[in-house]
Amino acid sequence: MGDSVAVLLDIDGTLVDTNYFHALAWYRAFRQEGHPVTVTDLHRRIGMGSDQMLDAVLPDRDRGRDDVLQAAHTEHYAAFFGLIRPLPGARDLLRHLRRSGAQVVLATSAPPEELRVLRRSLAAEDALTAVTSSADAENAKPEPDILAAALDAAGVGAEEAVMVGDSRWDVLAASKAGLACVGVLTGGISRAELDDAGAVAVYRDPADLLDHLDDSPVGRLLRRIP
Amino acid sequence: MGDSVAVLLDIDGTLVDTNYFHALAWYRAFRQEGHPVTVTDLHRRIGMGSDQMLDAVLPDRDRGRDDVLQAAHTEHYAAFFGLIRPLPGARDLLRHLRRSGAQVVLATSAPPEELRVLRRSLAAEDALTAVTSSADAENAKPEPDILAAALDAAGVGAEEAVMVGDSRWDVLAASKAGLACVGVLTGGISRAELDDAGAVAVYRDPADLLDHLDDSPVGRLLRRIP
Repeated sequence: MGDSVAVLLDIDGTLVDTNYFHALAWYRAFRQEGHPVTVTDLHRRIGMGSDQMLDAVLPDRDRGRDDVLQAAHTEHYAAFFGLIRPLPGARDLLRHLRRSGAQVVLATSAPPEELRVLRRSLAAEDALTAVTSSADAENAKPEPDILAAALDAAGVGAEEAVMVGDSRWDVLAASKAGLACVGVLTGGISRAELDDAGAVAVYRDPADLLDHLDDSPVGRLLRRIP
Repeated sequence: MGDSVAVLLDIDGTLVDTNYFHALAWYRAFRQEGHPVTVTDLHRRIGMGSDQMLDAVLPDRDRGRDDVLQAAHTEHYAAFFGLIRPLPGARDLLRHLRRSGAQVVLATSAPPEELRVLRRSLAAEDALTAVTSSADAENAKPEPDILAAALDAAGVGAEEAVMVGDSRWDVLAASKAGLACVGVLTGGISRAELDDAGAVAVYRDPADLLDHLDDSPVGRLLRRIP
């Protein structure tokens, strides 16, 4: 596939501080429909596709109400738009990766309106070489489809790329796509949980990854750029 | 001290599902005052006293604004009151402990109005033998003062009691008070984080602790009741 390498990055909880907003928005949606859930159970499932999340949390639900749950989440989540901020070092990391010559791909299945808000908050369009969205894959994480689409967009193979994410679902999807995954703690998922899922290294936040980039799996990938 | 034993229980995140609401309320308060923080940093500090939390998150802040931050948290947290629910098994656990003959003490430093809301949501007053509040201790968790007050209220020594909590601060406060602490995952803090702090056992939620009570440190304590 040539000399190019790519860093694929999840956005929610990895580059922008949104996981807790998603957990609360889902909690409100579930309560509204009368489902007794705990916020931590929802938090631990943020980052997987919403269909998969519903199957995990409410396997015996009336699927005819899924669109109501989804719409309620969308509405409650939108109430948080004004509070969304980039995570420490997120912009600097993206720009450093791009300047180093890597393809920089946002690998997300966020729906279009959410993605617009996230990209506006992140304000690092100049650093991006490609962005996936919900339109690019049938199945969201932990299935590998979105990462395959991101690799396609970058024009590289799995062995020429590294994933960065904050959830077990990022790590598991990366593993299924044949990619190493570096974890960050900014989604609120602990180091041990990311290690257990198979993360090859874990950093506090994007700033910490950037500070230790040379010794990281991402730094080792960048050194392969001629 | 006689034949009595006591189970001291944290309430926020342990018996009622409030930790994520506190984290979001603090996030709104910090943003309002212009402080850049991440939600996960706040989440990881829920369960310690708010003075200690402010010192940990913003060591160099203008302390003259602390009352503004506290008041903003109180206001944003109150917006969640209608969503507060008991955690799975919380009521059943408290009632089982009381029927077994243990003293059942809520060991919290929540301020009076919050505590009223939490107790109303929990709806297990019949199972409680004592409740502490912010008035009972100079220093909140991770200092042991509130647990010493709870032991006093129960009329037992540390060797005749066990703590149940969901945060590192519960475990650390218990340790300083000479108490074993059993952890639950319902506050969103992982098993590894609670283990690292020194929890003697960790359960998914109060229902899981109740299901495995006989084999737990709480069950071993109850067997000392004549």
